Amino acid sequence: MMLGIPFSLYYGDNDVTVLLGCGLGTSLVGTIIFLLTRDHEKDLRKREGYIVVSIGWLVMSLFGAIPFVVHGSIPSYTDAFFETMSGFTTTGASILNDIESMPHGLLFWRSMTQWLGGMGMIVLSIAILPILGIGGMQLFVAEVPGPTKDKIHPRVRETAKRLWGIYLLFTIVETGLLLLGGMNLFDAINHSFTTMATGGFSTKQASIAAYDSPFIHYVMILFMFIAGTNFTLHYHLLHRNFKSAFENDEFRFYLKIIGVVVLIVIAGLLLEEYAGFEKTFRDALFQVVSIVTTTGYVTADYELWGTFFQVLFFLLLFTGGCAGSTGGGIKMVRHYILIKNSIIELKRLIHPRAVIPVRFNQGTVATDIITNVLAFFLFYIFVFVAGTLIMSLIGLDFLTAVGATATSIGNVGPAIAGVGPTLNFANIPDLGKWVLSFLMLMGRLELFTVLIIFSPAFWQK
Amino acid sequence: MMLGIPFSLYYGDNDVTVLLGCGLGTSLVGTIIFLLTRDHEKDLRKREGYIVVSIGWLVMSLFGAIPFVVHGSIPSYTDAFFETMSGFTTTGASILNDIESMPHGLLFWRSMTQWLGGMGMIVLSIAILPILGIGGMQLFVAEVPGPTKDKIHPRVRETAKRLWGIYLLFTIVETGLLLLGGMNLFDAINHSFTTMATGGFSTKQASIAAYDSPFIHYVMILFMFIAGTNFTLHYHLLHRNFKSAFENDEFRFYLKIIGVVVLIVIAGLLLEEYAGFEKTFRDALFQVVSIVTTTGYVTADYELWGTFFQVLFFLLLFTGGCAGSTGGGIKMVRHYILIKNSIIELKRLIHPRAVIPVRFNQGTVATDIITNVLAFFLFYIFVFVAGTLIMSLIGLDFLTAVGATATSIGNVGPAIAGVGPTLNFANIPDLGKWVLSFLMLMGRLELFTVLIIFSPAFWQK
Repeated sequence: MMLGIPFSLYYGDNDVTVLLGCGLGTSLVGTIIFLLTRDHEKDLRKREGYIVVSIGWLVMSLFGAIPFVVHGSIPSYTDAFFETMSGFTTTGASILNDIESMPHGLLFWRSMTQWLGGMGMIVLSIAILPILGIGGMQLFVAEVPGPTKDKIHPRVRETAKRLWGIYLLFTIVETGLLLLGGMNLFDAINHSFTTMATGGFSTKQASIAAYDSPFIHYVMILFMFIAGTNFTLHYHLLHRNFKSAFENDEFRFYLKIIGVVVLIVIAGLLLEEYAGFEKTFRDALFQVVSIVTTTGYVTADYELWGTFFQVLFFLLLFTGGCAGSTGGGIKMVRHYILIKNSIIELKRLIHPRAVIPVRFNQGTVATDIITNVLAFFLFYIFVFVAGTLIMSLIGLDFLTAVGATATSIGNVGPAIAGVGPTLNFANIPDLGKWVLSFLMLMGRLELFTVLIIFSPAFWQK
Repeated sequence: MMLGIPFSLYYGDNDVTVLLGCGLGTSLVGTIIFLLTRDHEKDLRKREGYIVVSIGWLVMSLFGAIPFVVHGSIPSYTDAFFETMSGFTTTGASILNDIESMPHGLLFWRSMTQWLGGMGMIVLSIAILPILGIGGMQLFVAEVPGPTKDKIHPRVRETAKRLWGIYLLFTIVETGLLLLGGMNLFDAINHSFTTMATGGFSTKQASIAAYDSPFIHYVMILFMFIAGTNFTLHYHLLHRNFKSAFENDEFRFYLKIIGVVVLIVIAGLLLEEYAGFEKTFRDALFQVVSIVTTTGYVTADYELWGTFFQVLFFLLLFTGGCAGSTGGGIKMVRHYILIKNSIIELKRLIHPRAVIPVRFNQGTVATDIITNVLAFFLFYIFVFVAGTLIMSLIGLDFLTAVGATATSIGNVGPAIAGVGPTLNFANIPDLGKWVLSFLMLMGRLELFTVLIIFSPAFWQK
């Protein structure tokens, strides 16, 4: 919280004491909790893992929201909590109607929530969730650099160190490139934070459309794409292990999906004579990468492109980046396995006695992982449907309800209709904001982490 | 086609020669094909089974559409084909804007397409699809009265005879009750045909709302419910084997779903002071049973009840009746198994070493059946998504596109927005009508039957 204070001092903003007070206060509470619990054994078991992860994200948001309310720039705690949860879950859905009027320190904190959320997510998805056996994440266990199989503790620490180094490196490089493109230092750092987190918070009300620079747009497309890639691949690439990166089935699938969808969008936009070729190409690429990676920046309002694009971009809310990236959503690897398995299921019907396995990265995917991925998909649909029903009960129209729900579970940010790319979540009723905050948390923690805590079997013995 | 001629003669309609000509022409073509192919061996193999079923439904619709065009009451062949496919697939989506102006013989044929489609479906789902191993239908093999395991031929004949007897019996009883309620003979037979088929074609433009008789409404609710039940249960009930009927997990689930949704709808309608209690209860029960069983009759426009109900009824398009009924959709047994398996998947995460099977009707569901049901669900979602994209490309707005697609695959009839309960499909562009006709066929034949023909593996060797 306090890291933004230099900017507020530089710009002469009035949030210095608020950030200082809230920062020290939060640290104090943290220290007390730390001291009270330090005598417990340090090795977490699975069950505690689920609780620590879920409660951790929740507590960070509960405390992270305080500076906004104390300062008064977001008077309602509900709004502040929504904004902070949207930050830590790297969603990027906002209730702010005048971002530029916020003091710089608070804006920095707002972007920081996403960057921290992204950091947490990388380690969670690569080092912790696979051990908990969640949603096919086991597929990546073998690929984590330097795993030690016995205990969570040393392994998480080692993995985290390496991956955070890469994360930091990319953030610094992007900041440099954005400075080169003409952004000021404050905006460059903020946007690098929220790009690498696939978060999508901007320091401008108009999002990236505020920057009329193709260079900036292309830089952000590149880094959104990087942020949506499995960070273990970056690790391999940086260690010149090019083969294991480019032969990764998920990465190739991710490339193909983006390629095909971008081509469709370009074709559609050219047909309706949307703009010149470069701008058409750039806007199509930017919006597709932004939504697929679940970043949620906006350079163009795809809702004005026609019904087909509204449906298409709505569907993209369900794609998600690669597993082990900072992206949310269902994720590429799961779509890949679901499609592969469905095709094979047809073959199984034709040849009932043949054993045809699903292959992924030169290996065979175990049946229980496929079942787990299928279950993940079902839960995703179920939570989406339940969320939509609740949001419509709260009073949202059909399209806004499906859009807000899908973008929240998918941790994207913008959606369609009442929460379209040029609108925000300010007008959602308070109850709806709490429901959506919960959906963001569930989506971010791969559903199971949260769902499992609510299952009676979890609490038995 | 010719069975409606007596009605046209009685009412003095001008479609007698058309029905006679088309009926004899179709019979002639059928006889020629029969004579040309009679020398082939009579025992079908799996591969031929898929083709016969798919082509059969298609050819029936291609020929069945002819009388409407020749007579001129549906001038466009596209429209006539859509209407007929909607009939044979027991969907009930219509392009007619003035049903009452149609001659009685053609209306009778229109209702007859649904009744025949329902007949075909019962035998298909109980006797043929299980042998082909489609979408969990194997679960019912053991329950079919008098199965002989070796060959399709004798078994299908035996099962068909018994189930069609039940189907005919219910149709006659419903006709009698509707006569008792004040319907004329023509309307009573037509509505019995389309109720038992869970089809939903009415001889009135206003559908069942045209009859201001609570008795008629309740009779139709009862028979829609019966038509949405597994016909092997009716067989057991008629043989006084009450235990195996009431202990059927799918039937209990079907009852629970209808019960819970009806209660929610009643509560919502009472809150908004929709009408007196009896009418609220009746409209809620009628519309829920009509959509859940995929019949599609209308007594009240649920779109006027508010957004929540629009979302709710849209979701009901995906429920479907029981397997082995004439209802379409995903079907109760699949939802049951998907929900059970998902809950168990959570338990498996908590106890990774425990083997927890999914139970259904006192037995354990084999893993390959669960995988098959999951694959069915995925294909269903995939076809729904692809269909929606195509329909939006054709120019439908978002809600009409999702509604028209969902109601077509689910073989329901009405949907939401531009194809809501008081509207019809007349304004859909021609290309869209062909796409929707194909979706109806896919949905009716449990997706796999059609999909498998399009898979390269099917044609190998």
